[in-house]
Amino acid sequence: MKIYGMTAPNPKRVRMFVEEKNLEIPFETVDLAAGDASERFGNRSPLGRLPVLELDDGTLISESVAICRFLELEYPNPPLMGVGALEQAEVEMWNRRIELGLFRYIADYFQHTVPFFKDSVHQVPEYAEAAKASAREQLAWLDGALADRRFIAGDSYSIADITAQVAIDLGTPSVITIGTGLKDLSRWHTEVSARASAR
Amino acid sequence: MKIYGMTAPNPKRVRMFVEEKNLEIPFETVDLAAGDASERFGNRSPLGRLPVLELDDGTLISESVAICRFLELEYPNPPLMGVGALEQAEVEMWNRRIELGLFRYIADYFQHTVPFFKDSVHQVPEYAEAAKASAREQLAWLDGALADRRFIAGDSYSIADITAQVAIDLGTPSVITIGTGLKDLSRWHTEVSARASAR
Repeated sequence: MKIYGMTAPNPKRVRMFVEEKNLEIPFETVDLAAGDASERFGNRSPLGRLPVLELDDGTLISESVAICRFLELEYPNPPLMGVGALEQAEVEMWNRRIELGLFRYIADYFQHTVPFFKDSVHQVPEYAEAAKASAREQLAWLDGALADRRFIAGDSYSIADITAQVAIDLGTPSVITIGTGLKDLSRWHTEVSARASAR
Repeated sequence: MKIYGMTAPNPKRVRMFVEEKNLEIPFETVDLAAGDASERFGNRSPLGRLPVLELDDGTLISESVAICRFLELEYPNPPLMGVGALEQAEVEMWNRRIELGLFRYIADYFQHTVPFFKDSVHQVPEYAEAAKASAREQLAWLDGALADRRFIAGDSYSIADITAQVAIDLGTPSVITIGTGLKDLSRWHTEVSARASAR
C-alpha cells in the first residue's frame, strides 16, 4: 500500500488516522501545482484531489473517509470508527456534524480568501465572511457539546476527533480560533494535541 | 424505531434507503417552521436538522448517512453500502464524491436563492451562481464516469445512487438539469427513477 498526499487538511486526516492505527504505510508527497498530477502521479485521482490510497494490486481509493473506512475494516484495532452498529452510527454522526459544520466552513473561508485558490475557486468575499461567522458559531456549539464528554463522539478517541482537530488547526493561524470562553473545547484541544498523531 | 422527517432532500435519502431495504419504519413529519421543533418534536436534534432516527430505547441518531449506516449494519440485506472492505470503501468514495460535489453545490444554490432560507442562511447571489456552475461541471463529470458502469459505484445499486438521484431531482425543477448531451447520466437517471423507492 501507498498513500499519495500533500501538506493539506485532508491528507493530514489520513496521516493521523494511519498513525493512530500504528500502521506504517509509505506516504508520497505529490506537488499538484508543479505538474506532478500529469507526470509522476498520473491520473490516479479523477477529480485531482488528494489523498489517494493505492493498494498493491493498483486499486485506487480516494476521499479521506473512504480510505479511513478501508483501513478500519482491514485493521480493526484500535477502533477509530466505533464498534457495533450503534457506536459506528454515533461516530459517523459526530464526524459528519464536524465535517458539514465546522470543517466545511473553515475550509470554505480559506478557499474563498487565500490567493492559492484564486484560479480553482470563484472566490466570493461576502460568502467567506458568512462562512467565518458560521464556523465561529460551530465552535461555540461544539464547546457546549463537549461539556459532558471527553472526546467528540463520547468516551473514546475517534475519527471525529481527527476531523475536528484538523479543522481547528486550519483555522487557528488566521482568525477562526477557540475563544478564551470555550473552556471545554480548549480542554479537549489540549488533550488531542498532545497525542503522537498530532505531531 | 421511528424516523422524524419532513419533505426535504435529506429525509428523502433516508426514506429511499428504508424502502430499498424493504423495512417498515414509521415516518413522522415534523414541521419545523410551525413550532414542532419546540413542542411535539422536542429537542431531539441538537442542530435542529432532520431526519432523526429514534430507537425504541429513546436513543437518537441524526445525520442521514449515520442513520443509513445503522440500518445497513442491523439489516445487511440487500446491501446498499458495499460488502467487504474494498467494496465498502468504494461505495463510500462514490457517495462522498456525489455529496461533496454535486449534492453540495445544488443544495448551496438552493439555500442561497430560495426565499425559504433567507432567515437561516446569509444568502450571497454571486456564490449561488458559482455553485450552479460547479454543479453543472459535476453533472458532466458524472456522465463521463457512468460511461462504463451501470450504477454510480459499479454494478450494484447503492447509497451513492440515492444521493445522486436526490441531488439531481432537487436541481431539476429549476435550472440545474441533465443536459441532452449527457447520455449516460440520462440512461442512469431513467433506470433509478423507475425503482419503487423513487416514488
